[in-house]
Amino acid sequence: MNPLCPHAEPFWVAGEAFSAQEIQDLLGPYLSDERHARIRDVIAQRTYSIVPVTEGLYDRGNVSAVMRSAEAMGCQPLHMIDTSKAFKEAKRVTQGADKWLDIRIWKDTASCVEFLRRHGYRIVVTHVRKAKPIAEVRFDVPTAIFFGNEKTGTSEELLEAANDRVMVPMQGFTRSFNISVAAALCLYHIQQDRLRRLGRHGDLDEETRHLLTASFYLRGVPNAEEILLEMRTKRGASPDGKAKNNA
Amino acid sequence: MNPLCPHAEPFWVAGEAFSAQEIQDLLGPYLSDERHARIRDVIAQRTYSIVPVTEGLYDRGNVSAVMRSAEAMGCQPLHMIDTSKAFKEAKRVTQGADKWLDIRIWKDTASCVEFLRRHGYRIVVTHVRKAKPIAEVRFDVPTAIFFGNEKTGTSEELLEAANDRVMVPMQGFTRSFNISVAAALCLYHIQQDRLRRLGRHGDLDEETRHLLTASFYLRGVPNAEEILLEMRTKRGASPDGKAKNNA
Repeated sequence: MNPLCPHAEPFWVAGEAFSAQEIQDLLGPYLSDERHARIRDVIAQRTYSIVPVTEGLYDRGNVSAVMRSAEAMGCQPLHMIDTSKAFKEAKRVTQGADKWLDIRIWKDTASCVEFLRRHGYRIVVTHVRKAKPIAEVRFDVPTAIFFGNEKTGTSEELLEAANDRVMVPMQGFTRSFNISVAAALCLYHIQQDRLRRLGRHGDLDEETRHLLTASFYLRGVPNAEEILLEMRTKRGASPDGKAKNNA
Repeated sequence: MNPLCPHAEPFWVAGEAFSAQEIQDLLGPYLSDERHARIRDVIAQRTYSIVPVTEGLYDRGNVSAVMRSAEAMGCQPLHMIDTSKAFKEAKRVTQGADKWLDIRIWKDTASCVEFLRRHGYRIVVTHVRKAKPIAEVRFDVPTAIFFGNEKTGTSEELLEAANDRVMVPMQGFTRSFNISVAAALCLYHIQQDRLRRLGRHGDLDEETRHLLTASFYLRGVPNAEEILLEMRTKRGASPDGKAKNNA
């Protein structure tokens, strides 16, 4: 299983332990066929091998846009350094993207870099000048890609810690992309690079897919918690709780 | 010469006519070697073959971001339908990108489409649903790529006029990218597609390069107008006006 996947059995729901299979069995009937298919499709294209990391973003619009891009590009984890305030404000305007990501907030850059490196991730940092074109780096190995803030870019500390510094080449007089644009371009490039080199972007093993499916059911079924607890008290009842409730 | 290039001889400066060569000769001495090289590099990667067009954008931050992306991706023209107000407001925050583009504002969609089609451009419209992946369309022929507004997307009128409808595929639950992100991803993809198919993105012929160089000198030299008029009154003076002024 990927070391960054935060989901593990048992899943604790209001003090009660559930296996991933139980959650899928109990909540499955509450999802439409279309929703089941959608979750399957999303999981097939999901990866923990690419971790977008923002350092010190403060504009909630940008935080929100990075979340939407990461989610749309199949990245399951999103790490954020020192942006808890912007994150809280941004949650209102992400169009729900944050709901489907595994977000982790860090107080400082050093701890985040140390954690990711210890788990086998290359540290790739974006920078407008001191960097090589992103096309010169390969993304078929576990990689954390760092984006700096709106005004000062990525920190010196981060630039020094980097295995590689990358940029999206610019052909005009404009000196920098908007940060949300830069992040989207990098993540899109990475996805295309992986498709070319590996033939696929999503790469979850069976166990991770199983756990993430349960987690998505928990996130996606309205009142999932109440449903699970009610089922637990009626142990032995048919898993088709919806029919029972309507009876 | 490309039919969309708005630059033609003579260049009129405060009622006086100048050839492109005169402008380059007279203003050249006011640019540093580095600036000369930069202008040459930018022009080598410029194209009129791809025209980004926005339809009804109203957020000035988005207008500004689209301008920056277009300029950074080597597109010289940028057409905007019915966004004159947002454009005026956005000019303050483009970081100068608008200065280097040939921007044209249209009052309505029909006139813009008719104009571009008459000049040999394919009409490609972005849409989140009724569209094929952008990778299935080739961009080695003159193409106008349309982006709709923040709320309603591209108009029905535009969808009907389109030769192709394209989208950037999304792998998650998120239903749409932010418009400035979508535009940047499309323009980046188009640039990469042209590099792969043609070996280059920039494609100006010699005459267009000559005219655009003069236009960039006019845009880039501070007080260009005053300098040119002063030179004209001292006709026959050495083109090295800077040295004379300093004498």
